[in-house]
Amino acid sequence: MLMLLIALGFCPLTEAQQPDSVIIRSFFTEALSSAKAYDDLRYLCKNIGHRISGSAQAQRAVEFTYDRMKAYGFDTVYLQEVMVPQWVRGANETAFVTGNGSEILQLHVTALGNSVGTGGVAITARIIEVFSLKQLEQLGKAAIEGNIVFFNRPFNDAHINSFDAYRDAVDQRVAGAAEAAKYGAVAVVVRSMTHSIDSFPHTGALQYPHGVKKIPAMAVSTIDADMMHGWITQNKELKLSMTSYCEMKEDVKSYNVVGEIRGTIHPEEIITVGGHLDSWDIGEGAHDDGAGCVQSIEALRLFKVLHIKPARTLRCVMFMNEENGLRGGKAYAQQALLKNEKHYAAIESDRGGFAPRGFSVEAGADTIRKMQRWLALLTSYGLDKIEQGGGGADISPLNPLGAVLIGYVPDSQRYFDVHHAASDVFENVNKRELAMGAGSMASLLWLLCRYEF
Amino acid sequence: MLMLLIALGFCPLTEAQQPDSVIIRSFFTEALSSAKAYDDLRYLCKNIGHRISGSAQAQRAVEFTYDRMKAYGFDTVYLQEVMVPQWVRGANETAFVTGNGSEILQLHVTALGNSVGTGGVAITARIIEVFSLKQLEQLGKAAIEGNIVFFNRPFNDAHINSFDAYRDAVDQRVAGAAEAAKYGAVAVVVRSMTHSIDSFPHTGALQYPHGVKKIPAMAVSTIDADMMHGWITQNKELKLSMTSYCEMKEDVKSYNVVGEIRGTIHPEEIITVGGHLDSWDIGEGAHDDGAGCVQSIEALRLFKVLHIKPARTLRCVMFMNEENGLRGGKAYAQQALLKNEKHYAAIESDRGGFAPRGFSVEAGADTIRKMQRWLALLTSYGLDKIEQGGGGADISPLNPLGAVLIGYVPDSQRYFDVHHAASDVFENVNKRELAMGAGSMASLLWLLCRYEF
Repeated sequence: MLMLLIALGFCPLTEAQQPDSVIIRSFFTEALSSAKAYDDLRYLCKNIGHRISGSAQAQRAVEFTYDRMKAYGFDTVYLQEVMVPQWVRGANETAFVTGNGSEILQLHVTALGNSVGTGGVAITARIIEVFSLKQLEQLGKAAIEGNIVFFNRPFNDAHINSFDAYRDAVDQRVAGAAEAAKYGAVAVVVRSMTHSIDSFPHTGALQYPHGVKKIPAMAVSTIDADMMHGWITQNKELKLSMTSYCEMKEDVKSYNVVGEIRGTIHPEEIITVGGHLDSWDIGEGAHDDGAGCVQSIEALRLFKVLHIKPARTLRCVMFMNEENGLRGGKAYAQQALLKNEKHYAAIESDRGGFAPRGFSVEAGADTIRKMQRWLALLTSYGLDKIEQGGGGADISPLNPLGAVLIGYVPDSQRYFDVHHAASDVFENVNKRELAMGAGSMASLLWLLCRYEF
Repeated sequence: MLMLLIALGFCPLTEAQQPDSVIIRSFFTEALSSAKAYDDLRYLCKNIGHRISGSAQAQRAVEFTYDRMKAYGFDTVYLQEVMVPQWVRGANETAFVTGNGSEILQLHVTALGNSVGTGGVAITARIIEVFSLKQLEQLGKAAIEGNIVFFNRPFNDAHINSFDAYRDAVDQRVAGAAEAAKYGAVAVVVRSMTHSIDSFPHTGALQYPHGVKKIPAMAVSTIDADMMHGWITQNKELKLSMTSYCEMKEDVKSYNVVGEIRGTIHPEEIITVGGHLDSWDIGEGAHDDGAGCVQSIEALRLFKVLHIKPARTLRCVMFMNEENGLRGGKAYAQQALLKNEKHYAAIESDRGGFAPRGFSVEAGADTIRKMQRWLALLTSYGLDKIEQGGGGADISPLNPLGAVLIGYVPDSQRYFDVHHAASDVFENVNKRELAMGAGSMASLLWLLCRYEF
């Protein structure tokens, strides 16, 4: 036993009744057998549905997850008030393309989150296709003014991790409208952020920096984007006509939902585990991030139902407003600072409910090397890597408080097939993959409670 | 460079023009970017469909894959004749349950492969639920005779690898009918082999050993099985009425499809890579084993299109009749023996087209330890484990020839959701996961060519 502890490179905080391997096995057995996370996700997706910040569904999701944490017997459950932006789509947007004057394609589009609308009036203009912000700059005002810019740089399929493909393409969605406006564009349409070639448009946030003209922006499905590209290369003069009704309203009151299991030895040391409760207003927010929410609740439920007592305080948080403001994450860290709380570590699950691969950690090489010794306990569950990398958006404001930030890393191949799209529904989440993630998170919580960094 | 080779623990067979890491990266880049395997699988699933041994579709699949190998420029492509059993379903089977005399449930059923039918005449009898062959034996003739045995032991969800759950439950499907017949049962119905609780019945082979009475057997969906169990525990007298039309006909002629790229240094040393071309006669055989077939073809295409020359001869084989006879695998090994071929290694992909996890190897600890040093080159592609384990059914007859048998191991969580069911369709295969598997297999072929065991 001593040898094993030395091998793990940690001084144990407590004399556990059972070996770590037995505790971890019990988490996975219970998570896979009871499938509570899957049941909770079904309710969140099918009885509530998508839940953009400020919506009635977001409020229902607050109440549902509060009730679940109560029902599972967490020691303390409470709400944390937070003001959130309220972006509303209004009626469904439409767009179509004309080629040399006649309508040739009704597009599959979705307004980008935070975008202004056209006020229900059609904007019609010539399409200028570009593949980068750089190219936009090169074309300049002469080519862009009065036109609609079509950002069409696809995901680079050669990336192994699909988040790398997202990272390389997403500037078009986030900054495309603001940059195009500088050169006099009247609107933009952006190729959907996905590897998949299909008819689903994928929304997501854009940003209008201060002082920049706000022009309407939509995402278009990859099949439609490829068709438009084909016509443009055939020298067809393409015009696009778009109508949308979205607008940003006044901030409204909402909540983070917080549930705790009090630590037995160091109750003052908090380990946060969470996901974000809000989603975009299409699909059901099943992978993004219903999965992370129900897994976080499940991770604490596993401790409760198995009568496993954590040495440190475990706090499960349903963050509000990750998608278009991060207000929940910021408010949570602000409260922590005000109360002078000691935040030891935080885990976020916001990369989908897929099969486990490992964890990414925002910490120095020494800490990560120590954590990597835990892999011997984790590898039989598909957790093969603990590597330097981002924790997660919602927990990022905890960085100044000294918490070690950790991201749960599931397999990335399918995430962007459904991310921010109507296809992000319960049916596309696998029961076992979801449960394996919850077991993974509970196991890491256990190890974080049991050993010192 | 020398250091790296020493680290890999192998003496390189050739002076490669490029480092292994560059070759491997090129395989994945091409596989992910061109997505040829996905296109080939679409054709196999959508233009041909399911393809049970002896069917017209199986013959079309032979012709299609032969044509693909020719089109991709393999050095030699040929057919290998093999006689296969021809089990035919006939009209769709039906079954319903009566409780205390009145019909209460129309069941979702599928005849088990190789099963005799009822000849289109309903068999009606009382249902006796059992959970194991052992329990059947304990109940004996007194309880079983004249009745229909309902095997209802579910998958054990606590298993991490879903193949372990399959292994623990599948005796009911394979041997249930034969064992029940010994005690005078008139038919059996078997709970579907899946973790999923849904309405899809899953077929699969049963065996009638010589001298045992052949009684009809069907699989029933897990939801229906759970409902029947509920009624039985309420002491309802359940009767089942089943009608089926299936029968085993005379053997017919079919083929393995074989394509080769000749080795540059040891052309006489053959490395086989394959999957099985036949499938069950429901669904589209997309994961089982269309995926393995198109990945095997793609693995060789990657060498061709990237102008990478293998030191040993690579042979891609579409095995016929894995599902209900293994005639293709046996014929292939028999031919190899007759021709005195030297079989160095063989890789089979027959666990679905999911994200890569590693390889399982039938070899001694020394060989496996050596191969594990390759993991440094493979881990960034999700290939984290090379472990002792089975190669695959079709390549297993190559064992006496001394070949090292290797199974490609993708993530197992979703496989039995679709295995042998109507849900095993193209739509349930992910383009990137499929391509990653092809890249994985090509990479291992490269390393097997480049180094000695």
